Amino acid sequence: MATAPSVSYSMTVRLEVPAGGTAVSQLTTAVESSGGSVTGLDVTASGHEKLRIDVTMATTSTEHADEIVEKLRGIEGVVLGKVSDRTFLMHLGGKIEMASKHPIRNRDDLSMVYTPGVARVCMAIAENPEDARRLTIKRNSVAVVTDGSAVLGLGNIGPKAALPVMEGKAALFKRFAGIDAWPICLDTQDSDAIVEIVKAIAPGFAGINLEDISAPRCFEIEARLREALDIPVFHDDQHGTAIVVLAALTNALRVVGKGIGDVRVVMSGAGAAGTAILKLLTAAGVKHAVVADIHGVVHAGRKDLVSADPESALRWIADNTNPEGMTGTLKEAVRGADVFIGVSAPNVLGGEDVAAMADDAIVFALANPDPEVDPAIARQTAAVVATGRSDFPNQINNVLVFPGVFRGLLDAQSRTVNTDMMLAAARALADVVAGDELNANYIIPSVFNDKVAGAVAGAVREAAKAAGAAVTAATTA
Amino acid sequence: MATAPSVSYSMTVRLEVPAGGTAVSQLTTAVESSGGSVTGLDVTASGHEKLRIDVTMATTSTEHADEIVEKLRGIEGVVLGKVSDRTFLMHLGGKIEMASKHPIRNRDDLSMVYTPGVARVCMAIAENPEDARRLTIKRNSVAVVTDGSAVLGLGNIGPKAALPVMEGKAALFKRFAGIDAWPICLDTQDSDAIVEIVKAIAPGFAGINLEDISAPRCFEIEARLREALDIPVFHDDQHGTAIVVLAALTNALRVVGKGIGDVRVVMSGAGAAGTAILKLLTAAGVKHAVVADIHGVVHAGRKDLVSADPESALRWIADNTNPEGMTGTLKEAVRGADVFIGVSAPNVLGGEDVAAMADDAIVFALANPDPEVDPAIARQTAAVVATGRSDFPNQINNVLVFPGVFRGLLDAQSRTVNTDMMLAAARALADVVAGDELNANYIIPSVFNDKVAGAVAGAVREAAKAAGAAVTAATTA
Repeated sequence: MATAPSVSYSMTVRLEVPAGGTAVSQLTTAVESSGGSVTGLDVTASGHEKLRIDVTMATTSTEHADEIVEKLRGIEGVVLGKVSDRTFLMHLGGKIEMASKHPIRNRDDLSMVYTPGVARVCMAIAENPEDARRLTIKRNSVAVVTDGSAVLGLGNIGPKAALPVMEGKAALFKRFAGIDAWPICLDTQDSDAIVEIVKAIAPGFAGINLEDISAPRCFEIEARLREALDIPVFHDDQHGTAIVVLAALTNALRVVGKGIGDVRVVMSGAGAAGTAILKLLTAAGVKHAVVADIHGVVHAGRKDLVSADPESALRWIADNTNPEGMTGTLKEAVRGADVFIGVSAPNVLGGEDVAAMADDAIVFALANPDPEVDPAIARQTAAVVATGRSDFPNQINNVLVFPGVFRGLLDAQSRTVNTDMMLAAARALADVVAGDELNANYIIPSVFNDKVAGAVAGAVREAAKAAGAAVTAATTA
Repeated sequence: MATAPSVSYSMTVRLEVPAGGTAVSQLTTAVESSGGSVTGLDVTASGHEKLRIDVTMATTSTEHADEIVEKLRGIEGVVLGKVSDRTFLMHLGGKIEMASKHPIRNRDDLSMVYTPGVARVCMAIAENPEDARRLTIKRNSVAVVTDGSAVLGLGNIGPKAALPVMEGKAALFKRFAGIDAWPICLDTQDSDAIVEIVKAIAPGFAGINLEDISAPRCFEIEARLREALDIPVFHDDQHGTAIVVLAALTNALRVVGKGIGDVRVVMSGAGAAGTAILKLLTAAGVKHAVVADIHGVVHAGRKDLVSADPESALRWIADNTNPEGMTGTLKEAVRGADVFIGVSAPNVLGGEDVAAMADDAIVFALANPDPEVDPAIARQTAAVVATGRSDFPNQINNVLVFPGVFRGLLDAQSRTVNTDMMLAAARALADVVAGDELNANYIIPSVFNDKVAGAVAGAVREAAKAAGAAVTAATTA
């Protein structure tokens, strides 16, 4: 798979070039002939003899950018100046900030925002703690909590290195759902400690978004926090992914005209996302599922399962999938299957494996950036293909889900999040694609579709109220 | 002391009154004759027979406001509508929010702010963790941490009820120093737990502002966190107060022409603020200090000191004050003293006690809202009087200090905060009052004096650098 130049590897190179001659005209040629793409060429200073030019270009990787810079340096008469990386420039000093809702211009403002006026508000909450949802930021605040143990596909890079992702997440919460999220990056990877810490910081938040915490610790941490807290706790890597997959599968099945209870689903990957997808699909009606991990198909008799913790996710998979007791490899399992869902590793399947699936096969190859099977090749025989990538149709992206889910939970003042709410979110997301829009290349809306967050939020809010999980304070203003 | 009507008890009352007749003209009279102050009278709807009028007024207390409302109800022809409390209205939904620094308009923006572009920034920090101060919010972020155990003068009202104060604090950090602070209200009052939690959340912050944590727990918590963390930890109730008091005392001594090493200082209160003030004054050169608490003057032979923990603040006071071994009551100690500093309780001194102090006495009566001695009475014999109140000259207000202190620490990328930095902050704050401005009614600048934060920040930054405590990353952009 050739990767197209991307702004996420966008550089600006400052050059001095002779005013006469052909150097200027060679710049664009040099970039484009190296596979880069010029997105801007600004003359920032001009004289009789020399021009100063800022060339902004998209490249495919850091190495690729270096290569292009060397090529520019080689043009006769060109003097290379500063090379700036647009993505890094955007991160200088961080991507989010705290803002005050009220100006503090004078003594009067000060005495209402702070002492002495604030004391009366404190006392009102002390007398009726539920008023914190009315008179403080709690109503609209979510903590984005990570321990940095499983950041994107980068692994255990720790809490400081995780911070740019958490900031980005907070920015997306605001952009798509008007939610005030703040990153909490923890300098511990001890599950007991994480549970205690999140419990302790909960008073100031109306929801907890767990993020990039490695499996299997994430299962236990989430379960214990849900038990302990009176605000919803949602591990986005699990449930956000599961909801988008269910929505996409719902529409893919509509495209091929198959029923969710009839299809045979084969999954690759038994990590956090895989387990959550499997549970949600089961709740949605999938009856025939088989999961394979790095050791092959999961079945009750497999060696590593005999001694598995009865509470473990793998045990749950063995008990709830593969009723036929299939054994063997992923490639064997996928033969004749209606649906393949990969949340595992690059290139575990080839085109011949997809070709061996049932007619009108559905392939979700979600490993990022390199999918389980080349989507272009899969599409030659499969009826519907989706990936996690933005440069193919049908991108499975959590951004479609977590803002709306939390908006709905917060609006309902929900104390929990449960499977019914997640099923409702998936249904609402699937239904954003209208009947006359639906086709094999459009089973899931774009993240910039402005109907998405509202539809998901509305469905979750109603489900939360219906579940009796919502407590709407009698005194909301 | 009669309290003046304040906007912190500001109400808006909606009324319907007959268009003709005298009812309208009676409204203002009714409010003013009850001791309220009309700050706005808006006709929001007008007809031939009736007017709808919103009367906004400052009152002195909730009870006072109720009283005025009843008076308005009694005016013939007036129909009372909604009564709104301006301070509560300002708190609806909280006072602060999260804001994104960059718009997320399209796929390109998304791929730089979030995946896939963010991954490169994460990896850069994983390779060089110090880069977190350059490429994330850490550089400019402060956690405002409380356990709700000693909120304002309200006592142990818990983390949710403390949240409005922490939000206000965050708003002030931004307003006066451009710092991004976020409230962390802890649902535990166990010192060990608080230390572990703050240690764990530290990676995302460049400073910790401890707030409203009760003594003596606050001493141990702060000391342990300072030992454990590589970012400054500052308990504002202690050190913020101490710095303002030292600055005010510096200028008061200039007014009366006495030297800091010569004066006899008597303090009332041995809590968090009192102990910190005493330590800072000692570091600044005060040699003769006596402290009294609720049991009278603190001396080494006092019963409760024989068995006191050798690490306790009271022990430190006994060992470092009162070299003459004075015993007895506060009133006895204050006789002949040059300086009285109260951080204790209302009305512990009378006018006769102040009159019995040395000539050119200095009185800081900082209990809020009711000072240790009526400032108007104290001023009859004392040369300089300061309080914590905004309706008398010389307000001792932490807002003068904490924004600038943290700005300086953050700018220096300081890993600690020490006594030298606090002394520098006090000197800088005192020096904001120019020689030709200085007098008994102006020993400390207003919180809205726009030179304050910059002066304090500059002094702290230089002290931090001089102390070698600052690590300025070689790679700041």
